[in-house]
Amino acid sequence: MARFYKKRDSNKGQSPGSLIFIGNKKVRKPRIDVFDYTKDYVHEVQIKTPEELIPYKQNTSTLTWINVVGLHDTQLIEEVGTIYELHPLIQEDILNTGQRAKLEEFEGYMFVTMKMLNYDNKKHQVVSEQLSMVFGKNFLITFQERKGDVFAPIRQRIHNPSSQLRKFGTDYLVYRLMDAVVDNYVYLVENIGEQIENLELKILKNSGQEVLSAINMHKRELNFASKTMRPARDMIMRLNRQDEHFISKKTRPFLKDLLDIIVHVTETIDSYREMLSDFLNIYHTGISARLNSIMKVLTIFSTIFIPLTFIAGIYGMNFENMPELHHPMGYPIAMSAMAVVGVSILMLMKYKKWL
Amino acid sequence: MARFYKKRDSNKGQSPGSLIFIGNKKVRKPRIDVFDYTKDYVHEVQIKTPEELIPYKQNTSTLTWINVVGLHDTQLIEEVGTIYELHPLIQEDILNTGQRAKLEEFEGYMFVTMKMLNYDNKKHQVVSEQLSMVFGKNFLITFQERKGDVFAPIRQRIHNPSSQLRKFGTDYLVYRLMDAVVDNYVYLVENIGEQIENLELKILKNSGQEVLSAINMHKRELNFASKTMRPARDMIMRLNRQDEHFISKKTRPFLKDLLDIIVHVTETIDSYREMLSDFLNIYHTGISARLNSIMKVLTIFSTIFIPLTFIAGIYGMNFENMPELHHPMGYPIAMSAMAVVGVSILMLMKYKKWL
Amino acid sequence: MARFYKKRDSNKGQSPGSLIFIGNKKVRKPRIDVFDYTKDYVHEVQIKTPEELIPYKQNTSTLTWINVVGLHDTQLIEEVGTIYELHPLIQEDILNTGQRAKLEEFEGYMFVTMKMLNYDNKKHQVVSEQLSMVFGKNFLITFQERKGDVFAPIRQRIHNPSSQLRKFGTDYLVYRLMDAVVDNYVYLVENIGEQIENLELKILKNSGQEVLSAINMHKRELNFASKTMRPARDMIMRLNRQDEHFISKKTRPFLKDLLDIIVHVTETIDSYREMLSDFLNIYHTGISARLNSIMKVLTIFSTIFIPLTFIAGIYGMNFENMPELHHPMGYPIAMSAMAVVGVSILMLMKYKKWL
Amino acid sequence: MARFYKKRDSNKGQSPGSLIFIGNKKVRKPRIDVFDYTKDYVHEVQIKTPEELIPYKQNTSTLTWINVVGLHDTQLIEEVGTIYELHPLIQEDILNTGQRAKLEEFEGYMFVTMKMLNYDNKKHQVVSEQLSMVFGKNFLITFQERKGDVFAPIRQRIHNPSSQLRKFGTDYLVYRLMDAVVDNYVYLVENIGEQIENLELKILKNSGQEVLSAINMHKRELNFASKTMRPARDMIMRLNRQDEHFISKKTRPFLKDLLDIIVHVTETIDSYREMLSDFLNIYHTGISARLNSIMKVLTIFSTIFIPLTFIAGIYGMNFENMPELHHPMGYPIAMSAMAVVGVSILMLMKYKKWL
Amino acid sequence: MARFYKKRDSNKGQSPGSLIFIGNKKVRKPRIDVFDYTKDYVHEVQIKTPEELIPYKQNTSTLTWINVVGLHDTQLIEEVGTIYELHPLIQEDILNTGQRAKLEEFEGYMFVTMKMLNYDNKKHQVVSEQLSMVFGKNFLITFQERKGDVFAPIRQRIHNPSSQLRKFGTDYLVYRLMDAVVDNYVYLVENIGEQIENLELKILKNSGQEVLSAINMHKRELNFASKTMRPARDMIMRLNRQDEHFISKKTRPFLKDLLDIIVHVTETIDSYREMLSDFLNIYHTGISARLNSIMKVLTIFSTIFIPLTFIAGIYGMNFENMPELHHPMGYPIAMSAMAVVGVSILMLMKYKKWL
Repeated sequence: MARFYKKRDSNKGQSPGSLIFIGNKKVRKPRIDVFDYTKDYVHEVQIKTPEELIPYKQNTSTLTWINVVGLHDTQLIEEVGTIYELHPLIQEDILNTGQRAKLEEFEGYMFVTMKMLNYDNKKHQVVSEQLSMVFGKNFLITFQERKGDVFAPIRQRIHNPSSQLRKFGTDYLVYRLMDAVVDNYVYLVENIGEQIENLELKILKNSGQEVLSAINMHKRELNFASKTMRPARDMIMRLNRQDEHFISKKTRPFLKDLLDIIVHVTETIDSYREMLSDFLNIYHTGISARLNSIMKVLTIFSTIFIPLTFIAGIYGMNFENMPELHHPMGYPIAMSAMAVVGVSILMLMKYKKWL
Repeated sequence: MARFYKKRDSNKGQSPGSLIFIGNKKVRKPRIDVFDYTKDYVHEVQIKTPEELIPYKQNTSTLTWINVVGLHDTQLIEEVGTIYELHPLIQEDILNTGQRAKLEEFEGYMFVTMKMLNYDNKKHQVVSEQLSMVFGKNFLITFQERKGDVFAPIRQRIHNPSSQLRKFGTDYLVYRLMDAVVDNYVYLVENIGEQIENLELKILKNSGQEVLSAINMHKRELNFASKTMRPARDMIMRLNRQDEHFISKKTRPFLKDLLDIIVHVTETIDSYREMLSDFLNIYHTGISARLNSIMKVLTIFSTIFIPLTFIAGIYGMNFENMPELHHPMGYPIAMSAMAVVGVSILMLMKYKKWL
Repeated sequence: MARFYKKRDSNKGQSPGSLIFIGNKKVRKPRIDVFDYTKDYVHEVQIKTPEELIPYKQNTSTLTWINVVGLHDTQLIEEVGTIYELHPLIQEDILNTGQRAKLEEFEGYMFVTMKMLNYDNKKHQVVSEQLSMVFGKNFLITFQERKGDVFAPIRQRIHNPSSQLRKFGTDYLVYRLMDAVVDNYVYLVENIGEQIENLELKILKNSGQEVLSAINMHKRELNFASKTMRPARDMIMRLNRQDEHFISKKTRPFLKDLLDIIVHVTETIDSYREMLSDFLNIYHTGISARLNSIMKVLTIFSTIFIPLTFIAGIYGMNFENMPELHHPMGYPIAMSAMAVVGVSILMLMKYKKWL
Repeated sequence: MARFYKKRDSNKGQSPGSLIFIGNKKVRKPRIDVFDYTKDYVHEVQIKTPEELIPYKQNTSTLTWINVVGLHDTQLIEEVGTIYELHPLIQEDILNTGQRAKLEEFEGYMFVTMKMLNYDNKKHQVVSEQLSMVFGKNFLITFQERKGDVFAPIRQRIHNPSSQLRKFGTDYLVYRLMDAVVDNYVYLVENIGEQIENLELKILKNSGQEVLSAINMHKRELNFASKTMRPARDMIMRLNRQDEHFISKKTRPFLKDLLDIIVHVTETIDSYREMLSDFLNIYHTGISARLNSIMKVLTIFSTIFIPLTFIAGIYGMNFENMPELHHPMGYPIAMSAMAVVGVSILMLMKYKKWL
Repeated sequence: MARFYKKRDSNKGQSPGSLIFIGNKKVRKPRIDVFDYTKDYVHEVQIKTPEELIPYKQNTSTLTWINVVGLHDTQLIEEVGTIYELHPLIQEDILNTGQRAKLEEFEGYMFVTMKMLNYDNKKHQVVSEQLSMVFGKNFLITFQERKGDVFAPIRQRIHNPSSQLRKFGTDYLVYRLMDAVVDNYVYLVENIGEQIENLELKILKNSGQEVLSAINMHKRELNFASKTMRPARDMIMRLNRQDEHFISKKTRPFLKDLLDIIVHVTETIDSYREMLSDFLNIYHTGISARLNSIMKVLTIFSTIFIPLTFIAGIYGMNFENMPELHHPMGYPIAMSAMAVVGVSILMLMKYKKWL
């Protein structure tokens, strides 16, 4: 399957808003966790059916974070969507894991989707997982493809009564989740970046295919990462411009900080991509330079010995009537002639600065 | 005929607005289908002459979708245009199949034109077909070059009384048709993209012309697709900015979604184009690297054997007075000398890290 | 003379507004034609002296199109300019044929200049000719370097009483002249474009200089065309933004259409330029690939025969004491040894996937 | 450690605002210096504990510059931050030395961070050091990683009662510090630039690796410098747009001047980067040209002597029945034939303009 | 000294506004000329000391043009600056000849600085000289590094009572001086451009270093010119946007014309730079193509003669027991065998389209 572009064609001819899961099934059974909390109280529970969400929805005095893991059960997603009155297009977007990061504002809630990125050290590939969030004044629903441990520290922190998470609203919780994702971006870029900076030493010394395939691989992965992070950056930029209905004044500096970080990351990716292009050019030029020196050696050897071998060949001929052959000084003279020819060519080369 | 730019010169010297068909005739006989429907009623009929359209035009209580297939009958187009009072320039645009996607607003109706793209698997070419739409509050006229099955599912759905198409206005119908076209773009880019991603494996291993011509072909086709889709994206962007006269509030989120999709597609094309440029660079560098290793082998063989052959040549000379030849140890000494020379060169090469 | 930049230095030290003709004299004698017309009346006359223009200027009830062909008679231009009270800078601009396309608004009239482009099939060069227009409510003065037939159809059409030209004002006449020029751009780009698309087939097969010089030539000509058309496009864009003083409501859709066409043309040029860059890269890579296969052949032959020739050389030596030579099986053994060496090298090559 | 991107992952899972030092410890013990001054009075003192800052904070009639050197003592930074009521995110930013230059406005103070750049002549590397500044109406706190002498002249000048520093506010002091940093940028770019301009002479003459590695090194360092200076330029641009609350009218022209300088520096970097790309291309092309001339020599020698050697080889064969060998003129004729062949090939080459 | 970036570091640690001359001393003694004129009166005088300027300053009924040639006497500049109350930063800018073109507005006067460019035909280098202008309602002070003759025609014209210079204000005089500078730009670009267009013919035929070094030289000089002209263009753009306080209505069309010219020049530079990049690519590809044909010749010769020489070598061996040698038809058969091998290889090459 093309990694840079996920199939959507199974959807063809369907009316928009039809719910179809597009992606790879990554968990066996979907799972719904609910965190219900206020400053003074926390309640964490795993629920079986979407209907159990209704009381949480009705109780607007607490913050409710509903985390849905596993997207292939389209009916489940639809039921959750129905309870929270989500627009059909949003439900479709949640299920289509080939989405660009985006932010959509609706009455009463906001929809945000972005990708988590991890570096698979075995396949040397960046792997992505889609995270969708719907949040209103007092609820947040997150949809993940697979149970990741990236949110684990945040879950723990909610249990801590002195945590800032308990004091702020859903906007801050959303920020914290995004921050965890962006932290992963940072980690990814550091990881690839270090490999790239290490590659530099090999470029001028090495001429093997492995340098070339490393450059190719890093180019492709950065291309992929950049394609994923750029829309995420734009989305965070737009989130920063939202008015105070969804984003409180206190959360704002944190979002600005997050924007700074993701802008820095995307700029760093661009630097690394430029660096790789430079590497390729320098590697190519280095190869040409080395070819030059190889060919010089061949040419020097050939231009010296080819005429000498020819002279030896002449006196190896079996003509009867070759007076030089019978001359007592013939051999030393021939050898001297060869030496003269050889040395002349050498000197010519020296003069032409080939040696 | 140049595919990237369709001839318009037959038009030269004509006054603007003269109706001339520019393109290839793709159907034998034009055909006009009419869908007349409201929430509760559908009527589908194929009509013979444009005059039959007049009652539909006058009846403003129903939605009328008129689908014209085949553009070479300029008189027919003109008659339809006259009935619906279309500006002469629009009639000209409908007939000129070398149009960029565009949107034009007039009093009482809006004109939209874009291209359908398909991948011809035999010729490995993207083929385009022009689709023009004129729509007002209660009518939509579509002009196609050829009867395509891309709109078939939409036609079927209109017959279904519970379909959203029956509940919304012409703007939603226009959206659905555009969505079908953009779906085709998505499918096309997936198709080419998968071929490109598969190409990657061959780049470092292969040095044949077929890789090169594949890169060339994909570059050209993406170039063509990009050139076609970019104006379509801009057109949908402008459609999104239209006020509520033509685009109802309910249709708006769907158009936004469509815009997201086409933006994603054009960005993906750019990623693939960059990838192909990288492929070409890496392929070229790989070839140079392979040339290096070929030349190394040649140089190693030559620099070892050329001097040795020269020594053999010397003792193959027929001078009478060559004392070495008569020496009993002459042969073994000569052979040893050769071995010494050969091994010295080998060691020098090892020292210089050629081996 | 540098084609990309016309000399202006003869002007150096002159005060601005001094009238000096910069360009090549292209007609022997300047010629002034006057078209005076209303809806019901046309009068076409060639005049001898600028003074004859005065009555036309005073009569504001008719539209007057004054066409001046030939620019080297600076006094003539100045007299026309004086009668129509043109700003000295405009008179200077008309005479300097190295102008970028531009639009300048003055009180009572507007000044527009652009280039006609033609493809000289013999020299394989784009040749340009400057067209300047000054137009007010009821007059248009056009300045051409040479009598071209590009405006002939428009001249004819004015004589036709049912022509739109007779019903609209000078703004529409200006549009029609520009449209004729832009039509020439379209024709030019089609022409070059077709040559470029045909070039593609030769790129992978051919390695001669002619492909290279064709790429170079097309690059240069598109560069030249692009440099000329881009300012024209910007000028038409600005013309579209003019208020209704100079551009009437009825002419506006035609100008918008013209803008679409010239935008399409400039985008197509960019596509073709990119294509040429791709061609050059692919051609270069193709050459390297072919060099690889040439060198492979040389290396295969050399690495097989060089050692064999060396062995033959050994047994061609004339040492007295070479026991192998006298051994009855010496010859067949030597031949077998050569065969073993040759086959080993061949097998090594097969193993290394060289063959 | 990756130089282009400083690790932040130790921070992972921490709540934002947790203070962790990210960077290399560059001084053994942090040091806090206080400059307290008005027009008529200066007091410079090194303090031991942050608590000593409190009286300075309370006294708003003097300007206080607090210079903190050494960032690894997070508790110290936190205490300073607490006394001056700095937002936790700012305290975090001060400690994270992998920050992009930025400007953040808060109530009562402004936060600015940028990098000092120096060229390490031994490692041929640009080294960066982070400088953070927090300033309000009557205080400025600067945080450096290491005691640098770049601010020494400014410190001295404050002691001079006639210095402008004594007459202006903190905004001017901030400007002077930034000016010192930007002066370092200027010096750095001059330094690298001179090396690059000197490199030019070697490009066409030299084919060694050292040119290549110099190009690579300069590219990397300029890339790094550009990546650091660009955000600094944007930051100074934003500082210029600040209203008069923080930036007084008198300081404004100086800031504008500073902006001009940093814009000039970044543009110069771009020029140098382009120059290096050109160098690489020209160097590569030069290598190819030299390879051509090497191969020409080899080919000329080979094509002349290979056929001659072959002829000599024929007459070196030991067939009994070779009548030429016994002919008295056999030898001279063979020699003449060789001469004819050799000269013919030479003449053919001359004709083909190879010589 | 780095030409692309003039040293400023001597300034390091100095307080801003300290007057230090940065550049090369180009005249021995500074010289101040004063032109005092109205419509009816002109007075030209060379003054000795800045004090003599005071009466001119006080007399606001005449226009005064003060031309200062030579900048190394910082005290002189300072005295002039003091009399005309120039901001210290401006005085600094006048003395620093490494300035970007810029425009600065102050109360009562405007400051403008730009570079004159000339092409040094001997060194094949663009040389720049800085021109600074300060002008108010009735005075203009110009600062040049060296007495150039570029302003001579303007000086003469002021003496002419019918000259426009006498009728307009200082803004027109400033325009005329700028126009003279921009005229020099035009001349420079024409000059380099012609050399570049002539270079084209040599690219496909030549493979010597001189083409390469010409491309390199032109790239560098255009790079330098572009870097200098771009800010000048921006400055003229900003001057065009000034309100009527400094720029009168009558001067405005001239400034617009000047802007058109400098925009045209900078665009032409870009065209030429692109052209040079194309040249380099085509030159490189041409070299590779020529290498191909050289290697083909070598390979053809080698692959034909190497096997033949080997066969000759076999029958040159001295084994006693070689029955072929004694066979009466041995020689002719061997020769035929060689012919067959040679012709087969030739035919194979023909078949593979190598010949």
